[in-house]
Amino acid sequence: MAYSDKILKKSIDPTVHQMLARAQELGLETAWDRYEAMLPECGFGELGVCCRNCNMGPCRISPFEDAGPKRGVCGATADIIVARNLIRMIAAGAAAHSDHGRDLAHTLLMTAEGKGGGYEIRDEQKLQTLAAEYNISTEGRSKEEIALDLAGAVYAEFGKQEGPIRFSRRAPRKRVDLWQKLGIDPRGVDREIVEIMHRTHIGVDNDPVNLILQGLRASIADGWGGSMIATEISDVLFGTPKPTRSLANLGVLKADEVNIIVHGHEPTLSEMIVAASRDAELLALAAKLGAKGINVVGLCCTGNEVLMRHGIPIAGNFLQQELAVITGAVEAIIVDVQCIMPALGNLTGCFHTKFISTSPKAKFPGAIHIEFHEDQAYDIAKEIVRGAVENYRWRKPGQVVIPDEKVECLVGFSTEAILAALGGSLEPLLEQIKSGAIKGLAGVVGCNNPKVQHDFGHVNLVKELIRNNVLVVTTGCNAIACAKVGLMLPEAAAQAGDGLKVVCQSLGIPPVLHMGSCVDISRILTVCAAVASALGVDISDLPVAGAAPEWMSEKAVSIGSYVVSSGIFTVLGTVPPVLGSTAVTELLTTGAKEAIGATFAVEPDPFQAAQLMISHIEDKRAALGL
Amino acid sequence: MAYSDKILKKSIDPTVHQMLARAQELGLETAWDRYEAMLPECGFGELGVCCRNCNMGPCRISPFEDAGPKRGVCGATADIIVARNLIRMIAAGAAAHSDHGRDLAHTLLMTAEGKGGGYEIRDEQKLQTLAAEYNISTEGRSKEEIALDLAGAVYAEFGKQEGPIRFSRRAPRKRVDLWQKLGIDPRGVDREIVEIMHRTHIGVDNDPVNLILQGLRASIADGWGGSMIATEISDVLFGTPKPTRSLANLGVLKADEVNIIVHGHEPTLSEMIVAASRDAELLALAAKLGAKGINVVGLCCTGNEVLMRHGIPIAGNFLQQELAVITGAVEAIIVDVQCIMPALGNLTGCFHTKFISTSPKAKFPGAIHIEFHEDQAYDIAKEIVRGAVENYRWRKPGQVVIPDEKVECLVGFSTEAILAALGGSLEPLLEQIKSGAIKGLAGVVGCNNPKVQHDFGHVNLVKELIRNNVLVVTTGCNAIACAKVGLMLPEAAAQAGDGLKVVCQSLGIPPVLHMGSCVDISRILTVCAAVASALGVDISDLPVAGAAPEWMSEKAVSIGSYVVSSGIFTVLGTVPPVLGSTAVTELLTTGAKEAIGATFAVEPDPFQAAQLMISHIEDKRAALGL
Repeated sequence: MAYSDKILKKSIDPTVHQMLARAQELGLETAWDRYEAMLPECGFGELGVCCRNCNMGPCRISPFEDAGPKRGVCGATADIIVARNLIRMIAAGAAAHSDHGRDLAHTLLMTAEGKGGGYEIRDEQKLQTLAAEYNISTEGRSKEEIALDLAGAVYAEFGKQEGPIRFSRRAPRKRVDLWQKLGIDPRGVDREIVEIMHRTHIGVDNDPVNLILQGLRASIADGWGGSMIATEISDVLFGTPKPTRSLANLGVLKADEVNIIVHGHEPTLSEMIVAASRDAELLALAAKLGAKGINVVGLCCTGNEVLMRHGIPIAGNFLQQELAVITGAVEAIIVDVQCIMPALGNLTGCFHTKFISTSPKAKFPGAIHIEFHEDQAYDIAKEIVRGAVENYRWRKPGQVVIPDEKVECLVGFSTEAILAALGGSLEPLLEQIKSGAIKGLAGVVGCNNPKVQHDFGHVNLVKELIRNNVLVVTTGCNAIACAKVGLMLPEAAAQAGDGLKVVCQSLGIPPVLHMGSCVDISRILTVCAAVASALGVDISDLPVAGAAPEWMSEKAVSIGSYVVSSGIFTVLGTVPPVLGSTAVTELLTTGAKEAIGATFAVEPDPFQAAQLMISHIEDKRAALGL
Repeated sequence: MAYSDKILKKSIDPTVHQMLARAQELGLETAWDRYEAMLPECGFGELGVCCRNCNMGPCRISPFEDAGPKRGVCGATADIIVARNLIRMIAAGAAAHSDHGRDLAHTLLMTAEGKGGGYEIRDEQKLQTLAAEYNISTEGRSKEEIALDLAGAVYAEFGKQEGPIRFSRRAPRKRVDLWQKLGIDPRGVDREIVEIMHRTHIGVDNDPVNLILQGLRASIADGWGGSMIATEISDVLFGTPKPTRSLANLGVLKADEVNIIVHGHEPTLSEMIVAASRDAELLALAAKLGAKGINVVGLCCTGNEVLMRHGIPIAGNFLQQELAVITGAVEAIIVDVQCIMPALGNLTGCFHTKFISTSPKAKFPGAIHIEFHEDQAYDIAKEIVRGAVENYRWRKPGQVVIPDEKVECLVGFSTEAILAALGGSLEPLLEQIKSGAIKGLAGVVGCNNPKVQHDFGHVNLVKELIRNNVLVVTTGCNAIACAKVGLMLPEAAAQAGDGLKVVCQSLGIPPVLHMGSCVDISRILTVCAAVASALGVDISDLPVAGAAPEWMSEKAVSIGSYVVSSGIFTVLGTVPPVLGSTAVTELLTTGAKEAIGATFAVEPDPFQAAQLMISHIEDKRAALGL
């Protein structure tokens, strides 16, 4: 079928074209429509120069010489306003990841206390490793005893008044020294976030550099704290991911089965939904109602969590959440927290689809709220799945349009899995980097954003990088984009440059390694820290680079900040709201280099972005004498 | 001198008229000029319907039917956007107070450890009382030992992962039960703030009621946590305020002395500045340079802290900070955190005035940063004062214009001081309320805001209340406004209604009681809780009301929220950015009544506002059968 240019411009994914056409046919609205309706977006907001931090305003600074105010009512300049707004974004992003990590720590605590309604400790090896890291004795103790101490210690990281956060000491010594020198070695996670909110209150911090430094401090507490805790404790509870085959894209929905989508970010609920979907009683109920089975599929990062650990197919990334509903084939979309469009309420109302919210922290218009509590995890999950199965009766076959596309992928490359693929040590990877077969490493991550063509930046940036022998590690919506175009198959090595191709072929790995959900960017930090420490250098000395080609969330701002604070040059594909301040823009894109050894760049064109990253990697190689 | 209408409209305070005329003469800009330059302020921002919580936007919802988007790109409606924005304001306000309380807890900790560079425990009685409240044993222990335990316990309130916050249990049992029923009984202070930031991230909480409830929860953690801790620990360290005579308004600056302004919010530094200003060596230096002495005066809440405890004169409230500098008579303006205009940098540059920032959390363009650390408190304060004294040489007498106005006031009515004035028990107050001599109590607080005539709302609302036999307790910028017009003298009883007049005259107290700085609104909560508990009712049953006639800061949003959450009807004099959502506006002004027994009202006219409060108080009296 031929789609209009308008539709084709919105995405490179054929399932998106098909479902957008279908939406048009049905008169349904999607994020792309709402984005267009919003144009032109507010120029002050885009530049970051609008301030609503007190009720003397709102104030906005004119970006034009001799035209309009240059100071807010309190006297804040564009530099101050932009810096404040930016670090409030970091506060929100770090808070999101931090709450995610906190929830996992709490689940581990309850599990250790024997109150986890169905959870168990799946990775004892990791439990032991983390216990050792926290100086918790393991000798002759049950896994529950160890887990109790570990959960207590980890849970306490959030509320600590004084530092340091334990996992931050995984960073190379030089990096920690630098953080300390700059005064950005974080104390407890929550304290740093709260301090951002205090400093950005009217009449507190009015120095752009001082503000940004606090933003970086909170972001480090996210990357090496909240997010890393989320990753590590998830592994303890649900198992550390190993290479697993699965499928990606909307074609994973099945016309003849009960389709349940798990969407959001945390693994606690989705793990139990997956378990409940295999419950004999519910399978029998599904059969009785004429369904051939119960098909759980994922979206966004909750999707990545169960994809990596259970091979649960993934239906798509952020901008596909509405399209999945528009297939008319979804019995229930079950959500927890983060990146869940409130638009789903109206949309699911046009179909038989049940929209089920589960977190006390996140309710939605048009959703049925079935609150999830860890102590009755399996029972609640079973009731939710039962509701979905019973809803199969109400599916209207005439409304069902499922795209054909589903693509195979090999996912689950945790740090441990990468080490295993390398034969147990980083040495072979280092050798290949030294030899130049692999030029370097790139972490490509982040969201979707209707401001840019869906998946275009993600896929083309990654292709360009591997073509240039840069091994790509990925998480989040980028990982899903790569999976959907087959870049996560070992066969994709054919698309890599000669050096990388040979390495991938000899190891049987794809040139693009799926490391997990957004909080699992912490895995990338761990790998980089290990490589740097192995080489006796700082992370900023490594031939590595990061990118977020289609980012949109405040979490991405926090992620970008901790990645840069960790010493990794990072290219953003959509423009952050900072251009209204020359001082902040220069600090982030230039000045930061001297201070923390890394900078941001903004480059919407993925081919140019790849060039920036490759040239950075080559500079770092040269500096290392490679 | 006759001032232009334009100037007269800006304030009811003659010192403001004089200094604005002087600013005009010198070509200097003030907040009023910047406010006018900002007009028209952004209508979307004013209505609260502008969302910048992700990079798909900025989005803004059209307030007009059939004109522009009704949903953001994610699908968020005006209701969701307004609720999210409002609770982010609460997060920032609660964070500000919380960090203030945290700093005090830290100072107490250092003092107890013998590392407080000059601090000591001044109020052992309060130390004992608080220790008992925290179940800390006091028997046969030194004050330092007790303080060490208390500081540890209080410091831990911020990072607690589970509740409750100890001081929240000062609230009447019925109130606590209600909070628990609504799920808004707070856990640790920081956790609640962080959860606001998480919930307001894209795709998390999209239910206005659920969002507002979390906002209230964090605000309770401020009022009954962060702020109350700030108050109580300040009393332990610096003494609980007692009735003290002093002076208020710009006329407290002296033509022939070294003038030092302490401005900001925390007492830690200002206490030491006051002490250092009495240092013989520095007094001798001042004399040597031709000054007759060292005159420390306060601004804003740091000013209130030293006013109440040491009778240090107060130069003015928020909107007078620039005007104080324009007198040309200020050697140094020393600031810590909150409500400090960054405009002071440029402005002090036009005079000899040194602008000295001291908090690592708050730097300013054009300021000299001399970082304050508790362990060298006195030494640092002395160096700062020395710099100010030395700067006296550079004062240009031709630039000096100090208004004459300074008005006597009687301040320092802590809860303990009120009890003492009543003869040791609340009973006489209750009797007067029961008899109707006093109709009820009103707490009038909050900032200044150039959107309304400076001090007009503050002063007229209070006058109207006392005229109607409502005893007024006040803090912050309202307290300063009242002091400046003589409402804080026992003689002001003449302006009260017959019942209140007699009570005040017999007790020798003013009809308007100065309870302290903004964090000391917690003192008002304590009084209300004690009265309610004495009567066996909830706070919401009392004939009390609150008002913030000229509020502007996010702290005020948090304060208003915890006051209403505590059951006290509150009238706002400037419009909060919520009118873009009918749901949120109705919830705050109507729906909240059923849920938490109190609501907000918005009424810019102080006479009308007084009527709303009086009529509320009369309703409550009737319900109590009075």
